[in-house]
Amino acid sequence: MLVNGVPWRPVQLAGNGWAVTIIDQTKLPHAFETVDLTTVEEAAHAIRAMLVRGAPLIGATAAYGVALAMRADPSDDNLAAAIEMLRKTRPTAVNLFWALERMRAALHNRSVEERAGAAYAAAADLADEDAAMNEAIGEHGLEIIRGIAAKKPGETVNILTHCNAGWLATVDWGTALSPIYKAHDDGIDVHVWVDETRPRNQGASLTAWELGAHGVPLTVVVDNAGGHLMQHGQVDMVITGTDRTTRRGDVCNKIGTYLKALAAKDNGVPFYVALPGPTIDWQVADGVAEIPIEERHADEVGRISGRTESGEIVTIDVLPENAKAGNPAFDVTPARLVTGLITERGVAPATEEGLLSLYPEKNNG
Amino acid sequence: MLVNGVPWRPVQLAGNGWAVTIIDQTKLPHAFETVDLTTVEEAAHAIRAMLVRGAPLIGATAAYGVALAMRADPSDDNLAAAIEMLRKTRPTAVNLFWALERMRAALHNRSVEERAGAAYAAAADLADEDAAMNEAIGEHGLEIIRGIAAKKPGETVNILTHCNAGWLATVDWGTALSPIYKAHDDGIDVHVWVDETRPRNQGASLTAWELGAHGVPLTVVVDNAGGHLMQHGQVDMVITGTDRTTRRGDVCNKIGTYLKALAAKDNGVPFYVALPGPTIDWQVADGVAEIPIEERHADEVGRISGRTESGEIVTIDVLPENAKAGNPAFDVTPARLVTGLITERGVAPATEEGLLSLYPEKNNG
Repeated sequence: MLVNGVPWRPVQLAGNGWAVTIIDQTKLPHAFETVDLTTVEEAAHAIRAMLVRGAPLIGATAAYGVALAMRADPSDDNLAAAIEMLRKTRPTAVNLFWALERMRAALHNRSVEERAGAAYAAAADLADEDAAMNEAIGEHGLEIIRGIAAKKPGETVNILTHCNAGWLATVDWGTALSPIYKAHDDGIDVHVWVDETRPRNQGASLTAWELGAHGVPLTVVVDNAGGHLMQHGQVDMVITGTDRTTRRGDVCNKIGTYLKALAAKDNGVPFYVALPGPTIDWQVADGVAEIPIEERHADEVGRISGRTESGEIVTIDVLPENAKAGNPAFDVTPARLVTGLITERGVAPATEEGLLSLYPEKNNG
Repeated sequence: MLVNGVPWRPVQLAGNGWAVTIIDQTKLPHAFETVDLTTVEEAAHAIRAMLVRGAPLIGATAAYGVALAMRADPSDDNLAAAIEMLRKTRPTAVNLFWALERMRAALHNRSVEERAGAAYAAAADLADEDAAMNEAIGEHGLEIIRGIAAKKPGETVNILTHCNAGWLATVDWGTALSPIYKAHDDGIDVHVWVDETRPRNQGASLTAWELGAHGVPLTVVVDNAGGHLMQHGQVDMVITGTDRTTRRGDVCNKIGTYLKALAAKDNGVPFYVALPGPTIDWQVADGVAEIPIEERHADEVGRISGRTESGEIVTIDVLPENAKAGNPAFDVTPARLVTGLITERGVAPATEEGLLSLYPEKNNG
């Protein structure tokens, strides 16, 4: 997507053709700073220190990290060491392990002479596949937005989103935001209500920044506001991403998603979830009962970062001293509240039948 | 209620018997500082600069402001001037005008010699009546909490609340928090989930502070978390306050209340609203259609205050530069989502019949 009119990916080859340029997302939304990774150590640090975040982007950055390692030393020992170093950066990132396994499979039978070139090619393939999958989600979601726009000619289509499921979390396009970028680029008059997404403010910082950088009109609102907006006809559809979708279509996503789904249902607003097929967990049926919800550190609730008038970035405490805080990081939206699931293969109802119609290879019944 | 074991009201006579001690609520939750008001000008400033906030507290502070004025100069001219000065402090505060009218009625026929004493007595009456009304709300709400506690002997009763409808906003007890204080003081094991209440964070700052000061166990959560907590049986009831309730029982309250009511309904959690009878608007039937919702300044969304590690209070900006923000301040919870209305006269269903059963004098049919 665009930043100041220039197409960007959050991980891409640098101008010299071998270093790897990332956006330092810890500086967003207050500064747009890029970093050129030149070693596998730098790639590992970028993942560990969350300069890059979002499962697909972490995977792609790790793949390029292997390529940087192979450029420096394409030996078997160094291939193993690089993969091991990168694997330890984020201990629970399934997508990271998957990307590293794929790099190992692509490289371990290659000769030392071929390895650097093959590694860059494999990393580029992995990145391009993610971008293509997300673009396909965007094309399918675009049809839904077109349908809404057709019913209100000359009027703005208002879409509410929660958290950040945009290009900053992927290699390109994003998931929930992909249909929105497609619609905007297609000339549809879209406007996005961006949920702040407490406690980590991914909406107010990342989503607002990336939509704004691409030129998509947006308004940030607190997480409390969406129900009121829907009551008053100011939301035409909701699109969110998801971390994990069960085979029956229950959706685990950032805390607060469920509340927006309830409000959408209560007001007849369509509620869509955008997801790449690999995030469907075919082993789990009932999301509320079966998915354990991560309880994160209370400091995420009590401490907030931002910029002072002089431009300095500081962290402040907003709770009374010694006040206890709870921080469940995700919730589960039952499938009954979901209008449809937008995947790279098309749009399905949030049911087991619906998902199996798109992924028949998962049918083991 | 208690602060460090000492009973406090947010407005009360000072030790010298004539000055008026308030809590500087702009310093909460980071510091507990009191201010002794000695002139009507100081009282007006305290209201204007929001050292005191909450409709009942503003009214009581204004009443004491008239008393301070009468102590200095009990002439007719000064009575009129004091009322005029106080009236201008918060131009839309209905409770403020009501309190000032009541003071005028109590004083204008009094002799100059009697006025100061009569003014202090009238201000104390007004304050005590508010405290008594709120305490009655607490007694009625206590019965509901007792009923819940009886069904889970030996277990904690978990109550979720939104915004601040506590003693800090009234003369004593508060509205939504009054039943909670009663239950805690009665030995019931209550724990409160305190919604942060973005954008102004009244929950995280005021509610967390006042419950903590009184010794009521609490956990602050972001506004996004309540639905998840209810899905997992961690909320036994919700109690909120209200700014305005329609005659059919629709409840206008701080933005986000509606989302919690939806989640309560979806999970079979009782959702109660505590209110003093005077906040019922008998002229309005359909809250969603008829109540205009104030759109407040976008800076409330983008700018947050808190304390740095060195203890300094600073305000930071959390949005991308130039990002637009929307800030609807209230929403309306339809009566169909409200389990009951807790008033000073008892608990009623959220219906016109229910409210008229408690306030038969309003029946003009």
